[in-house]
Amino acid sequence: MVFKKEDPKKALKELGDKLIYQINKGKNPEITFPLRNLSNIVYDSKSKTLKLGDKMGTRSFFNVAHAKKFLQTVEVAAVIKDKLLGSGKHSSLRDVFYMTKRTIPGTNVNLVDEQTESDKAIEDLEVITGLSREELHVNANKNGSVAGKVIIEDKGDIIDWSRLGSGGWAIPSNVENIKFKKVEAKYIIYMEKAAVWERLNEDKYWAKNNAIIISSQGQTTRGIRRLLQRLYEEYELPIYVLCDGDIYGAYIYSVIKYGSIALAHASERLTIPGVKYIGITMDDVEKYDLKKHFIKLDEKDYARIKQVSEYDWFKDNKAWQRQFKMMKEFKAKVEIQALSARDISFVSEKYLPDKIKNKEFLD
Amino acid sequence: MVFKKEDPKKALKELGDKLIYQINKGKNPEITFPLRNLSNIVYDSKSKTLKLGDKMGTRSFFNVAHAKKFLQTVEVAAVIKDKLLGSGKHSSLRDVFYMTKRTIPGTNVNLVDEQTESDKAIEDLEVITGLSREELHVNANKNGSVAGKVIIEDKGDIIDWSRLGSGGWAIPSNVENIKFKKVEAKYIIYMEKAAVWERLNEDKYWAKNNAIIISSQGQTTRGIRRLLQRLYEEYELPIYVLCDGDIYGAYIYSVIKYGSIALAHASERLTIPGVKYIGITMDDVEKYDLKKHFIKLDEKDYARIKQVSEYDWFKDNKAWQRQFKMMKEFKAKVEIQALSARDISFVSEKYLPDKIKNKEFLD
Repeated sequence: MVFKKEDPKKALKELGDKLIYQINKGKNPEITFPLRNLSNIVYDSKSKTLKLGDKMGTRSFFNVAHAKKFLQTVEVAAVIKDKLLGSGKHSSLRDVFYMTKRTIPGTNVNLVDEQTESDKAIEDLEVITGLSREELHVNANKNGSVAGKVIIEDKGDIIDWSRLGSGGWAIPSNVENIKFKKVEAKYIIYMEKAAVWERLNEDKYWAKNNAIIISSQGQTTRGIRRLLQRLYEEYELPIYVLCDGDIYGAYIYSVIKYGSIALAHASERLTIPGVKYIGITMDDVEKYDLKKHFIKLDEKDYARIKQVSEYDWFKDNKAWQRQFKMMKEFKAKVEIQALSARDISFVSEKYLPDKIKNKEFLD
Repeated sequence: MVFKKEDPKKALKELGDKLIYQINKGKNPEITFPLRNLSNIVYDSKSKTLKLGDKMGTRSFFNVAHAKKFLQTVEVAAVIKDKLLGSGKHSSLRDVFYMTKRTIPGTNVNLVDEQTESDKAIEDLEVITGLSREELHVNANKNGSVAGKVIIEDKGDIIDWSRLGSGGWAIPSNVENIKFKKVEAKYIIYMEKAAVWERLNEDKYWAKNNAIIISSQGQTTRGIRRLLQRLYEEYELPIYVLCDGDIYGAYIYSVIKYGSIALAHASERLTIPGVKYIGITMDDVEKYDLKKHFIKLDEKDYARIKQVSEYDWFKDNKAWQRQFKMMKEFKAKVEIQALSARDISFVSEKYLPDKIKNKEFLD
């Protein structure tokens, strides 16, 4: 019962129809779908993404261990079908939780008590229908800004990303329905820090280098990942990731490239195998004389280096293993902003243009 | 030596000139400015803001306890004057730290070792010159989105906040130089949650109610506070704050209205005495049947209620004291999104319009 990508309302209706068919046949209604637990999450070295394996699970109504989860899945499907897709409106995970949170009539039992329950039901529906949360109108967090020579159409508005002053366009949580009208830019720099974005924007890096600059503040939201992926797939734009020179930067990069364990079921929709890491690298330390700006690693950092370096998608990657080794040898990390010590615009006038010219990336 | 608001470069040059004058006179060079420590932070019930008191401090060069701080203040002033104001570029606190981080020639002593040192020097310069960080080209965090019938000019771009699709304009960290070209909107809703902003934006709340909707995600940045304040002062737009019904929501509101201890020296530039709290209130619990969506308070919540309720600006405020009492009686808090349980667009179609029509605010 794994549907192909199609009309979301139709997909949910088909799910309901199958259950009704089973009920009318006097059968125990059940739903079958790929398991999402750790034992069924595999790194596919061919597609270079974290994916769900072949193990399937079944959830049936007349089973004390399944009944509540079964109901939750069906209820969330109904809420999404009628209240979200039916009205054309979008919602957050938290809102869906409140929309499904009700007491089952004639009992003291709540359909959901915690948001994790409705969240899991939404993930179920993603794997059952083959549709993303966003296609089911359940949005993730909103964060981030973008600027560059791109014109889009969104909700009837024509928006020119090169005419938005010092702020840029605020990236919505859901970018499924934006239309690219004109994409002049030739590549994308995605950076983890909004302050660096503001530096590049003030220096008009995107105009001078015909690039798109995108930043979150902290975590890369699903909205940003989908925006990056759409530009990569629809316009074949190279994407370069700019992070602090530390293990957390490496992980931010790896999530964009290979996916994450929590979202393995959505890899196809979120990962970008071609993305490259532009810096800060441990080689930059010598090259740009950054040693004096070292920040000492602590126990947590070392533990994280060990953990990340052993991930399937990193363990055979020599270039990255060399980076991890250097991190441990240096006993230190270094921030993007350390480049400011050389010159306020060093990052936009020298560092990035040189790296791109010399194709100095980590893969 | 407290300057009036004027040309930032001139203000910093005057500071340097005075020091040179003292040196040429054979005097111990010193800087005098209002103290920023807790003992000198007072709540001014007349202006309804947290302010610095009258206590002044002196920092002189030939004083072992002052020498390093004196040097840091002068060095940061030089970096700001030459590298930021001189080039017309802006920077973050972190960047200024790296720009000032150097070893004093002939010694093993770094001018600054920790960012807190350069941060404090920047605060010194704010009180010495009477200028804000933003006017000194040191930006705070970038966060937040805005939509509504407003047209601005920024960096030569004309930006219409009503034509930016599902994303809105990304608010920059520094809004000092944006020009309002046309402000049709009649009031502002500021909300703490980006998901609620997306709800209001999708429902075109700002178009239907001729309002401006602004949101951060978490903390209200200085950029957002200045944007709110400028619209409040320059266009006399009422501002209504929409937060979760809990003590943290009350505090978010109070920071916008009265200021914060950490930024007491910048109150004049950041506080908005006329701002009002629209919800969620403890009275909404009965009115909108939100009891079933209660989230139990924990020890931390109770401690915070006690602390906030005793703040100078809240302790004589009967309406708020009643709210705090109800929080404790309910033993619970309630989120904005609990309104979604009634209907996905309840917040934009019923809750907010009713509150505004009936002028149901907390002051």
